[in-house]
Amino acid sequence: MREVLAQAAFQLFLERGFERTTVDDIVARAGVGRRSFFRYFPSKEDAVFPDHERCLAEMTEFLAAADDGDPVGAVSDAARIVLRMYADNPEFSVQRYRLTREVPGLRTYELSVVRRYEQTLAGHLRSRFGADGDGALRAEVIAASVVAAHNNGLRLWLRSGGEGDPEAAVDHALALVREVWGRPAASAAPAAPGASAAVPAVPLAVSGGGDGDGEVVVMVARKGTPMWRVVQQIESAVGEN
Amino acid sequence: MREVLAQAAFQLFLERGFERTTVDDIVARAGVGRRSFFRYFPSKEDAVFPDHERCLAEMTEFLAAADDGDPVGAVSDAARIVLRMYADNPEFSVQRYRLTREVPGLRTYELSVVRRYEQTLAGHLRSRFGADGDGALRAEVIAASVVAAHNNGLRLWLRSGGEGDPEAAVDHALALVREVWGRPAASAAPAAPGASAAVPAVPLAVSGGGDGDGEVVVMVARKGTPMWRVVQQIESAVGEN
Repeated sequence: MREVLAQAAFQLFLERGFERTTVDDIVARAGVGRRSFFRYFPSKEDAVFPDHERCLAEMTEFLAAADDGDPVGAVSDAARIVLRMYADNPEFSVQRYRLTREVPGLRTYELSVVRRYEQTLAGHLRSRFGADGDGALRAEVIAASVVAAHNNGLRLWLRSGGEGDPEAAVDHALALVREVWGRPAASAAPAAPGASAAVPAVPLAVSGGGDGDGEVVVMVARKGTPMWRVVQQIESAVGEN
Repeated sequence: MREVLAQAAFQLFLERGFERTTVDDIVARAGVGRRSFFRYFPSKEDAVFPDHERCLAEMTEFLAAADDGDPVGAVSDAARIVLRMYADNPEFSVQRYRLTREVPGLRTYELSVVRRYEQTLAGHLRSRFGADGDGALRAEVIAASVVAAHNNGLRLWLRSGGEGDPEAAVDHALALVREVWGRPAASAAPAAPGASAAVPAVPLAVSGGGDGDGEVVVMVARKGTPMWRVVQQIESAVGEN
């Protein structure tokens, strides 16, 4: 029933435009009563995005079960849940993207949904980083970065008309965030001595370059760290012993 | 007139609530005709945020005149224009923050405004980074990071009731973004050899830790860079020759 209503609504939005379609039109097309619509959707806008609530719930569940060792990886993987929802139905996703560009109310609705995803990711990071020091700040900045990167990749795919593999663009974009914000401490060499807890927790780490054209070393250490320790850490990371 | 209307509107929103205040109530309080309201504000929501349009215009002008050498610094400074708008009127800003928490329509309006700031910053970065390669991706991720950092600092100040210096929290938050996304190439040591153009352009640089408790070295180089070159670069950055 829910899907029948969403499909009827979307067909009408494409045929007549979002603003000119009423809930009465939708229920008439679907062949059900008016109250059925509001049992499934709080508003006309919600019928355009029928899967975000499920996606948000799935994301929350996924993060609750996520390993503690790699919070940036966990929120990146959580963002991919949204991508899969779009990728599962390329034609619908592309049509909706075009419709959303044209209807200010849908754009605003989408911003609210994106903000809820961002807050879900930030909440997870905050719980892992802790509330002390810059934990909340880092959580919010990284969550915003992950969302921006995900949406950049997703938008490229939507603009291309849903051709090809959307995973590739999103993976590439999320890899950029990961390069900058580091890999899990557990799988990397120990942080250089004197590394400050207040700076972004980028441990000495080796991470793949996004272009597949070489790897990069990202290294953070407090100024004044003895040079021999820095060299030791870098050597062990780049494997030049 | 514009300010009189905004003040009348805001007083009524605090007294009666946003939803229960009509445009007729506002013009009656301000002692003007109904059409005057719509000459200045497209909607009731706009009267709650009377300065964002001016702020967006100022930001655009500031960025158009910005030096090319430090795009991340330029967008950080552009974000501070928003902060100053809030800081210029602490009592109003704090009251509005509380009102916005309670009214879903105002939260949505605020999300739209924040998105416009973010797009303005991203547009500037795109124009500086170029459209090739990861220029657009980096522009969007950095713009999102700057906005998230700015808003984290601003929110801390608003939640504290507008006590103290809001600049300090925002400066601290923006410094985190800067540490991660690098300082201008012109004022830093040359990038390590082999540094990839496709990875975030974090040149070998020395930047102050956010806690004032030491400085950090952030270094990015492609894996395989000769160790002597890495050491040379780090030595010149940390001043241990």
